[in-house]
Amino acid sequence: MEKADVGRKILGANETCALKNKQFLARHGKRCFNMISSPGSGKTSLLVRTITDIGQSLRIGVIEGDLQTDIDAERIRATRAPAIQINTEGACHLSAKQVSQALEGLPIENLDLVIIENVGNLVCPSAFELGEDGKIVVLSVAEGDDKPVKYPGIFAKSKVLLVNKIDLLKGGMVDFDLDRVFADARRLNRDIEIFPVSAKTGEGMQKWYDWLTSQARSH
Amino acid sequence: MEKADVGRKILGANETCALKNKQFLARHGKRCFNMISSPGSGKTSLLVRTITDIGQSLRIGVIEGDLQTDIDAERIRATRAPAIQINTEGACHLSAKQVSQALEGLPIENLDLVIIENVGNLVCPSAFELGEDGKIVVLSVAEGDDKPVKYPGIFAKSKVLLVNKIDLLKGGMVDFDLDRVFADARRLNRDIEIFPVSAKTGEGMQKWYDWLTSQARSH
Repeated sequence: MEKADVGRKILGANETCALKNKQFLARHGKRCFNMISSPGSGKTSLLVRTITDIGQSLRIGVIEGDLQTDIDAERIRATRAPAIQINTEGACHLSAKQVSQALEGLPIENLDLVIIENVGNLVCPSAFELGEDGKIVVLSVAEGDDKPVKYPGIFAKSKVLLVNKIDLLKGGMVDFDLDRVFADARRLNRDIEIFPVSAKTGEGMQKWYDWLTSQARSH
Repeated sequence: MEKADVGRKILGANETCALKNKQFLARHGKRCFNMISSPGSGKTSLLVRTITDIGQSLRIGVIEGDLQTDIDAERIRATRAPAIQINTEGACHLSAKQVSQALEGLPIENLDLVIIENVGNLVCPSAFELGEDGKIVVLSVAEGDDKPVKYPGIFAKSKVLLVNKIDLLKGGMVDFDLDRVFADARRLNRDIEIFPVSAKTGEGMQKWYDWLTSQARSH
């Protein structure tokens, strides 16, 4: 069997399972988003701040993907939101099957929304559908403004781009041209919503909360 | 064929080719390092600064891996160092075969050292040997101090850890416990050399240059 055929077969099985997840979520009337970024862009911090700020009005359940450890799920559970940790044991992305099992473990009826935090990796997770309603790509300003051009796949596929750590732009600590990122991301994907935010200071977070709330209510 | 068997077969073919690259480099008496990190940790900036500062005494050739674009090779070439760009067309790591072709394109006899800048990805590249003498992992302080624990594979395998962007530690712009990273990285790999550096300000770079020079001269 050719390498490409095997790749297609693995992707095919994943897509079948992703469709089942999508049907499960639709049956329960819940939206689900798949959050993707490099390690250290601040996905977990964004989720912790989001749940802390609006978790009373928007009940969010989290599925955490990591190679090892349950550090991230523990951080989410400290906010009292339900979180299921998946350890991929070295694999570089979550699969639909892993998410299917995690969905069974969440108290789905008591939630308004499910967010999946994928393994930190800007490349591989973008090829694996999990049954989500959309992908959310996170880019921290510390990573540089050339990332949409260099890693176009995930920016082309995402509903939302969260540009995180904008507090670092103050005082010129980091060279990052926000206008360039807006232009490059929209050249790849003219419908992408872009929210510059800081999970640390809270700056810009309200627009992200408004978007997330409108999505959860749109069923 | 089982998925795991296919994986072993692909890795096996890669290792055969990696061994050929190693023999090619040994025959020419050149050292080679494989630089791995998340997108945006500053690999290219580190290389540009290194070549600018010590490129007269240490002749470095660069092999650049990216999904698309030749932005990084252009940045290297602006220093007048030779650079070969490999576009992986979406693949998340470099293969030994791609490196083999790039090595043919470098003026190997006129170099003291070859550095491969892998695709920005902290997970997949660590599983693919390219024929290098060692791996160099780069972690920027903006990514957080939990990365050795969360992505242990690459820290366990690397000869050197460059902790980049330490200029961001000034004034508490970033929460990052350098002692924790030293302790966690050395728990995984007690021989790892760790250099806290800033490619932007030049802080800490001299020790890295000394190490690199001693490696190149140790043939």
